[in-house]
Amino acid sequence: MYYPEPVGRLIGELTKLPGIGPRSAQRLAFYILEQPVTAIEQLARSIVEARQKTRYCSTCWNITAADPCPICASSYRDHSTVCVVQDPRDLIAMEKTREYKGVYHVLGGAISPMDGIGPDDIRLKELLARLQQGEIKELILATDPNVEGEATAMYIAKLVKPLGIKVTRIAHGLPVGGDLDYVDEVTLIKALEGRREM
Amino acid sequence: MYYPEPVGRLIGELTKLPGIGPRSAQRLAFYILEQPVTAIEQLARSIVEARQKTRYCSTCWNITAADPCPICASSYRDHSTVCVVQDPRDLIAMEKTREYKGVYHVLGGAISPMDGIGPDDIRLKELLARLQQGEIKELILATDPNVEGEATAMYIAKLVKPLGIKVTRIAHGLPVGGDLDYVDEVTLIKALEGRREM
Repeated sequence: MYYPEPVGRLIGELTKLPGIGPRSAQRLAFYILEQPVTAIEQLARSIVEARQKTRYCSTCWNITAADPCPICASSYRDHSTVCVVQDPRDLIAMEKTREYKGVYHVLGGAISPMDGIGPDDIRLKELLARLQQGEIKELILATDPNVEGEATAMYIAKLVKPLGIKVTRIAHGLPVGGDLDYVDEVTLIKALEGRREM
Repeated sequence: MYYPEPVGRLIGELTKLPGIGPRSAQRLAFYILEQPVTAIEQLARSIVEARQKTRYCSTCWNITAADPCPICASSYRDHSTVCVVQDPRDLIAMEKTREYKGVYHVLGGAISPMDGIGPDDIRLKELLARLQQGEIKELILATDPNVEGEATAMYIAKLVKPLGIKVTRIAHGLPVGGDLDYVDEVTLIKALEGRREM
C-alpha cells in the first residue's frame, strides 16, 4: 500500500531469499530503483543465466556449467578417492584448501529424521552406483560435524564397508556443532590429514 | 576459479548490493541455483520491472509508477503543507504513521561537505520552484536527526524563511544520531506533534 505496485512485488520476491528480512528487502529494492537501468538488467541477466547455464554433474552432483564437471573430467585428479560432502558450498570449501586431489560426491543434504529427510532423499543410490563400478578405493566422509552430518557418515560407512572399500571420516579438528563450509582452510587441512578408518 | 563461470559472475553482481558480503552472496547464489527456473525468472523479472516501471514524481521526487505520484495527485491531501525528507524510505516511514495528511518533497540526500555533497546536489532548486508557486504555507523539515540532516534543515530554513513561509523542524523525540527510517511510528508521531518553528 505504501509502495508503487512493482516495488511492492520486488520487495515480496526479495523477502523470499534466505537471510533477507523485510527491512533488508526494502533497502535492496530502493538501491535497485536508484541504479542505472543497464546495471539492473545486467544483475537480472546474471541471475537468470547462472540458473539456466548450470546443472548438476551427472557423476558427482556438483553444480556445473559443463557435464561432467571440470573436476570429474580432469585427468590430474585421483578418481579412486571420493570425498562425500553435503552440498556444493562444502565442495568449494574443500577445494580452497588446495590439498585434496581426489574427486567428490555431493549428497545434496544429510539424513535428518526430524526434518523428514531419509536415506532415499539424498544421493546415496547414485553414490552406490558409482562404487559398484569398482574404480573407487577410498571414500572420505566430509559431511558436516553436527548430528545430521555424523548420522549420515555413520549410515554411509555401514552401507559401504561390506563392499570392501576403505571408508574414512575427516578428523574432528573441526569445531563440533558447526557448518563445514564455515571452517578455515588450515583446520580443514588438519581434518583431512587426521582422517581415520571407520 | 572454484565456481562455474556464470555462478562466479552472479556472486560478483550480488556482492555489489548494499549489505551483501562475499559469504551472503555465495549463499544467495547457491540458493538461486537450487530454485526452479520459473521462480528465478520471476525474481529477475520483478527486479527489472521495478526499475523500468518506476520513475521520480516530477512534483515531489518520490519514486512512483505514475507521474504525478498518488500522494501528489490526491485531493484528500493538504497541498499547502510539505514535509521535506531525504529519501523515499523516509517518506514511507512518515506514511506509516497514518498521521500526516500533507504532501512531500524528497531531497535525494543531505548536504554533507565531508562527502562532497553540496546544496546543488540535492533537490533544493526543485523545492524553491515549488515554494515560488505560492500555494505552500508550511514546510516541515523531516531530514535525519544526525549532523548532515540537521545541517540540511538549517540550510533550508535560512533559505525559505525570507519567503514568508512557516518552516518547522520535527521534534527531537527521535533518537539523535540515527536514521529517520529506523524510527518507530509512535516516536515519529510524537516528533510530528512536537514540531516547532525555526
